[in-house]
Amino acid sequence: MDNRPIGICDSGVGGIVVLSEIIKLLPNESFIYLGDTGRFPYGTKSKDSIIKYTEESIEFLIGKNVKAIVVACGTASTVLPEILKTKYNLPIIGVLEPTLLQIDNNNKKIGIIATPRTIASKTWDLILKEKYPNREVIGKACPLLVPLAEAGWIDNEIAKLTLKEYLKPFKNIDISELILGCTHYPLFKKLIKQELEDVKLIDIGEKTAIYFKRFMTENKLLSGSNSNPKFEVNLTDMEDSYLEMINKLLNEKSKISYDDIKKVQL
Amino acid sequence: MDNRPIGICDSGVGGIVVLSEIIKLLPNESFIYLGDTGRFPYGTKSKDSIIKYTEESIEFLIGKNVKAIVVACGTASTVLPEILKTKYNLPIIGVLEPTLLQIDNNNKKIGIIATPRTIASKTWDLILKEKYPNREVIGKACPLLVPLAEAGWIDNEIAKLTLKEYLKPFKNIDISELILGCTHYPLFKKLIKQELEDVKLIDIGEKTAIYFKRFMTENKLLSGSNSNPKFEVNLTDMEDSYLEMINKLLNEKSKISYDDIKKVQL
Repeated sequence: MDNRPIGICDSGVGGIVVLSEIIKLLPNESFIYLGDTGRFPYGTKSKDSIIKYTEESIEFLIGKNVKAIVVACGTASTVLPEILKTKYNLPIIGVLEPTLLQIDNNNKKIGIIATPRTIASKTWDLILKEKYPNREVIGKACPLLVPLAEAGWIDNEIAKLTLKEYLKPFKNIDISELILGCTHYPLFKKLIKQELEDVKLIDIGEKTAIYFKRFMTENKLLSGSNSNPKFEVNLTDMEDSYLEMINKLLNEKSKISYDDIKKVQL
Repeated sequence: MDNRPIGICDSGVGGIVVLSEIIKLLPNESFIYLGDTGRFPYGTKSKDSIIKYTEESIEFLIGKNVKAIVVACGTASTVLPEILKTKYNLPIIGVLEPTLLQIDNNNKKIGIIATPRTIASKTWDLILKEKYPNREVIGKACPLLVPLAEAGWIDNEIAKLTLKEYLKPFKNIDISELILGCTHYPLFKKLIKQELEDVKLIDIGEKTAIYFKRFMTENKLLSGSNSNPKFEVNLTDMEDSYLEMINKLLNEKSKISYDDIKKVQL
C-alpha cells in the first residue's frame, strides 16, 4: 500500500480528460495535476522544447513526492521514450503504449490524427510498426483541432468542414482504427463518426486509464481504502476560463473552485 | 546619429510583418528581432503572464544594447502602459498609439478585432475613449484567426465561415473603421473586405512603422547612411516552418537562412 499521490502532467487543461477517466477507476487515490498553460500548446513547438518542458514538468511532480506519473498529453508522450532512457526511477507512463494494446492484429491500415509535432515525430509509426509490422500507418496533422476545442466550436459548421478536410486522407482507404492522438480530440467523436462510419475510434484517455490501473495494481502501488484522497491542481498560467474548462471535464464529485488552483513556475 | 540596432519583439514570428514595414521606411537601420515562439501564442494567456513575458523580452533586447524597442505584438502592447510606468529609460513603442493617430474624428462606432487577451484587457477601449470620447468601441475576440493564419488557411471556405461568424457583431451597425488588432490579421484583409465593404481597415503594422520613423527622426536616433545595417533573429523555440514563415513575411532583400536564426532562452 502506498498513500502518496499520483502525478499527472499535460501541456494545458486537456489532460484533465485523462485524469477524469483515472479517477473513475481509482477513486481512493490522491492526484497532483500540473498543466503547463503558460507555454500551451505543445503540439506546434519543436522536439527540443517539448523535451525540456516535459522534463521540467516531471521534475516538478517528483518534487511533490508522487509515487507515479502519467504524462497525459499526446505530444509530450512522443518524447518520453527518449527522456526515460537515462533518467528518473519512478514509473512514468505516457499515452502511447496503453493505446497500442487496443489495436487489433489485422492487415488493414491504421489511421492517426494528432498535433503537427506528434505527427512529425513519427513515434506512433515506430511503435505501431514494431508490434504490427504488417500494418501500414497513415498520419495526419490537425493543427486547428486544439484551438477549435478550446473555443468550444466542436459541432458547428466550421468544425464540420475542418474535420472533413483533415479526414480526407482516410477516405476510400481501408483503415480499421483511427487513433485520436491528442486529449482534446474525443470532443469531436460525433463529427468524426459522421465522416468515417465504420472505423473504430481509439481514445487515448480511456485506454490510458485502464492500463494505468492494471499497472498500479500489479505493482502494489495503490492507496488503501481509508486514504482520504486529495486533489491538487497546479497551472503555470491562470485564467478564469481554465477553471470553467477543468470543471466541464471533471466528474461531478471532483469539481474544484478557484482556490483549489495554484499558479506555479517551472 | 546613433548606429546601435533597433529591437523588435513579438510573441512569435507575426511581428516580422511590422519589422518588414519598418525596414521599408528605415533601410539604414540594424535590427535585432526576438520572437517568443517557445511560449507562443500570448493572446489566450493571462495578463500577469503577458507582463512577465514582455518584460523578459524587453530585458533581453536591452542586453543587446538596442537604442529603441518596438513591441510588435497586439497582445503584448496592451500591457505596455503598465510596464512603462516605472521601468526602462529607452524609447519603447507598442502598436496602440501609432494606430490611434489614424482614426478619424467622426461620430460613428469603431470596431476592433483581436485576441481574447487583448479584448479582455479593454486597453483599446480606454485609449480610444480618451481621445474620441464620443465614439463607441465594439470589440470582438477572434481566437481562431491566429491558428488559421499559422496553418496557412487564409482564404478557404473554413476561413471564410470563421470570419463571417466573428464579424457578425459589426454587421448592420454603423462602424467607420475596423482595427485589425493583431499582426496576423492583415492576412485576412480580402475576406474581411467581402464581409464589411465600406469599412476602413486599420492595419497596426503599417501605422506603427510610419509612427516609429517619425519618432526616430524627431529624436535624432537614426543611423548614418554608411551604417552597414545588420539583421539578427532570435527565437525561443526553433522549427523549420518558422524560417519559411519569416521569409514569406520579409521583403526580398532581407531574406534570411537557417544560420541567421539563434535559439535563445529568456
